[in-house]
Parts: sequence; structure tokens; C-alpha cells
Amino acid sequence: MPRQPVETRTLWRVQEGETTELSDWVVVEEPLEIRVQGESLAVIMRTPGHDVELATGFCVTEGVVKSAESIGTIRQCRSEENGELNVVEVSLAPGVDFDHDRLRRNLMASAACGLCGRASIEALATRASPSRSGLRVRRQILLSLPDRMLRAQESFGRTGALHASGLFDADGRLRVCREDVGRHNAVDKVVGRAALDGVKTEDAILLVSGRTSFEILQKAAVAGIPIVCAVSGPTTLAIETARAFDITLINFLRGQSMNIASLPERVIDP
Amino acid sequence: MPRQPVETRTLWRVQEGETTELSDWVVVEEPLEIRVQGESLAVIMRTPGHDVELATGFCVTEGVVKSAESIGTIRQCRSEENGELNVVEVSLAPGVDFDHDRLRRNLMASAACGLCGRASIEALATRASPSRSGLRVRRQILLSLPDRMLRAQESFGRTGALHASGLFDADGRLRVCREDVGRHNAVDKVVGRAALDGVKTEDAILLVSGRTSFEILQKAAVAGIPIVCAVSGPTTLAIETARAFDITLINFLRGQSMNIASLPERVIDP
Repeated sequence: MPRQPVETRTLWRVQEGETTELSDWVVVEEPLEIRVQGESLAVIMRTPGHDVELATGFCVTEGVVKSAESIGTIRQCRSEENGELNVVEVSLAPGVDFDHDRLRRNLMASAACGLCGRASIEALATRASPSRSGLRVRRQILLSLPDRMLRAQESFGRTGALHASGLFDADGRLRVCREDVGRHNAVDKVVGRAALDGVKTEDAILLVSGRTSFEILQKAAVAGIPIVCAVSGPTTLAIETARAFDITLINFLRGQSMNIASLPERVIDP
Repeated sequence: MPRQPVETRTLWRVQEGETTELSDWVVVEEPLEIRVQGESLAVIMRTPGHDVELATGFCVTEGVVKSAESIGTIRQCRSEENGELNVVEVSLAPGVDFDHDRLRRNLMASAACGLCGRASIEALATRASPSRSGLRVRRQILLSLPDRMLRAQESFGRTGALHASGLFDADGRLRVCREDVGRHNAVDKVVGRAALDGVKTEDAILLVSGRTSFEILQKAAVAGIPIVCAVSGPTTLAIETARAFDITLINFLRGQSMNIASLPERVIDP
């Protein structure tokens, strides 16, 4: 049986000077190894569950494959040593080119010279294009997304330590919601689920429970997502990436307000 | 002039149906390349500032060097192309052994077999030992730490998107506080500052503003820190790592309460 995303641990609770023992829910963190064509590509710390989605999303957003169609089979393997399901093996479709060393170098993200935010955006432009989505979304729908995602989060309330990511359509319908101890993993699981289902992300809205850094925008750009919303703030490089790839970036989406950092014309009045 | 940790960006604020343009503070995110003995080792997305501390802490906690004494010089370089200060060059002290390929493999964290949380802890045991600190801290002092760190945070109030990390002594005096867009970077900056100053961390308390995952505990274990506190929750692997290395792990340190996951005897009554 796969591990659950949360487990109980015995802890000591100190409150108003009193110490009591209690059994509390704790989010599970375990390494997952992603192997492509039999070779180890990366080890990610993640919350178990939806591991095939995670590996699919990782392969798509990190540029292992150009699109989900390049993936042949994805298989979760049980370790012979300890029986844990902590390895996913990806086989590529026949004829798909794969340069293991080049990709490993890319994942190390090592830029030869002129290293700066601009160089990071230029590197991304070799595998993502500006969004040409004509998506328009009503303001009231955007304001309703955090509550919709919170209701779908399975484990958050029990631990308070999980990041969530949700993919919505233009009417605010939640297509998929995933949780993970890693912010990027939650996005990869959502993008991976969409890829496995053949769901187009060119007219979808991505909501993340935390902040938006470069890597979140990078993943959205590769997946072709036109609107990225976050409950917390952005970084400078996230804003610059959103502007470079024509992504509408919305932060501090809380209550009845939001900050829009780029392409506000996709947000329309009721 | 180095970039500041926060900069302003022009955004659109939507509130109660009204859209207004505003200039808001945004946390800066830029890549930093760490070179050791002239070769590129890693590129980290970080908030500029205290970059020499960050590189020092990274080298110590990721096992590039056994201790800060193995570092000869650390120098921040200006890119010839764009003038940005996004490279730090580390030279090792004479006679210090350095296997670039082995280290790069370690940083990819690729475990050959039996991959699981236990294997991660066993790998860590090759470069960290259980804490033998006799440190005892009064409960009331621990409860006061989040407020003390918040008062020292330079940029958080302006952006709401920065993680902080602080190093305290047994009397709750803040020795160093650093902020970064990356949780791990904030810890590396604090550990790096202590290493550069020759401050012993064997009797120090580390406080992080967010959650505690495996990597935070890994860094604390390598630095020999006996007490790790966090405002948010832990992961299972963080708890297991704390227990394996005799670190007192305290989570949900808020108001008048906390959860202690390991070695509660280091927390004493007033």
C-alpha cells in the first residue's frame, strides 16, 4: 500500500505552561527518484501520492520531453530492498530523442556566463513561448478561487504544512487540486494530471497557495498556462518572467482584493 | 552597487471592484552561481545580499568542505557581461581535498538503491553526528523568539514574501538574522555568518519563519545546532532526522504554545 500524504506522530504540546503528549498529523516527506530510459535523472523530496502525475509534470515542465506525447510509459517501482514506492521509471515513446547528460546539466541550471535574471528568462525562451491565449476571466470568479481550492484540499487542515496547487477553467471550475510539501511538486502534479488526461492548459488558470517565484512561472510558461494566481506575493523575477511570456500574474488573492503584476486585460468586470 | 533585497514594481491593485495603479515593494530573486576552485558547482535562486555568507553556509551545510576553516578565500565577482554581482568564487585552503565530480553527484542527491527517508538519514550520518549539546533553554525564552526575529526582519513587512532565519543564544539574544526568498538560503546565510565570525553553533538555537523539512534539519545537523524552532509545521522526515541526530525540534511556535517533536528535556520550566 502506498504511504498516505499525512501520518501521525507522537509529540509534546506545550500550552499555557502545561506539557501534554499528543498524537498529531504530520505531512509525509520522502525522496522520489525519477529515472528516464533506465538512468537516474533526479531525486525530489516530495509527499507520496500521485507520483506518476508528479513524474509526468516534472518531465514536461523541466524540459525532459517536449510534450506529454513523448512519454511512452511511466511506471512506479517498488524498491527490492525496503518495499517503498520511491522510484518512478519513465520510458520515452519510440523515436524520441533524449540526451541524458545535456539534461542533467540543464537541471543543474548552470549558466556559462552573464548569469542574471535576464539570462534565466532567455534560457527559458528556448523551450517556452509567450502565451497567445485569448482567455478572459471575471474578477468575481478569480476572487472565489482560493476558497474553492481550500475546500478541495484533503490534508492541509490536518497538518498546516502542505502547499496546494489547483487548475481551474474560465468559469472557476476546479479541474484538479494537488498537495505537496514542495511548492513546485504541487504544480508538477497538477500539470502532470492535465497532461495524462489530455486536458489543454492553454485556457486554464493556475492557483498556488504560496508565493510565486521564478520556478513556478517557468513551469507555467512551459505548460502554456495564461493566468497564474497566488495567495502570497511574487518575486521580481517571477514578475519579469510573467511579462516576458505574456502570463497574467495575480498575487495576494485574498478576500475581495488582488494585485495584478502583468496583462491585467485578462481580468474583466462582472 | 549591489542590488537591494526588495525593489519596487508598478502593479495594479484590485480592491472592492476598483482598479488602481500602485508601486509596491517586491522581493528580489536572482540566480547566484557558486564556483569552487574555478569550477561551477551550483546555481541557486536567491535574494541578493549577504552572498558571501550564503556561499560559506552552502559550502558548510552541503558538505563541500568539512568546516569553515577549509575555505581559503571567498570572493564575489562582477560579471563582465552585465555587471551583476551574481557569482561567488570559493578557493579552498592549501591542502584541502576536493573531488568536484563526487560532490556534484552528492548535490544531485542520487541514491543508488533502497531509496527512502531512512537512506537519506543514513547518507547524512556520513557527515554529521548526533548533537551532544547540554543546552537547556527556558520555555519563556523560546516563546519570545518569533517576536524578536520579526523585529529584526528588514524587508518582510514590505513584501510579505521573504523567509527569515535567526540564530539565538541560550538567553534568547539574537546573534544574526537573515532573509531570503528561499527557506534554505536564509539558513545558509545565518550558518555562513556564524562560520565567518567563528561563532560556535553547538549551543545555539535556530529559528525559521516557515516549515521544517528534511533539508532544514540536514543543514542544522551538519552545523551541529541542538535546537531548531519553526513558526510552522514539520514533515515526517524532519522529525525522524531530528530524532536521529538528537536535535530538539519545536514547531508551531506561536503565542504561548509550541509542539516539541524530539528531545523535550532541553526545554525547561522557568
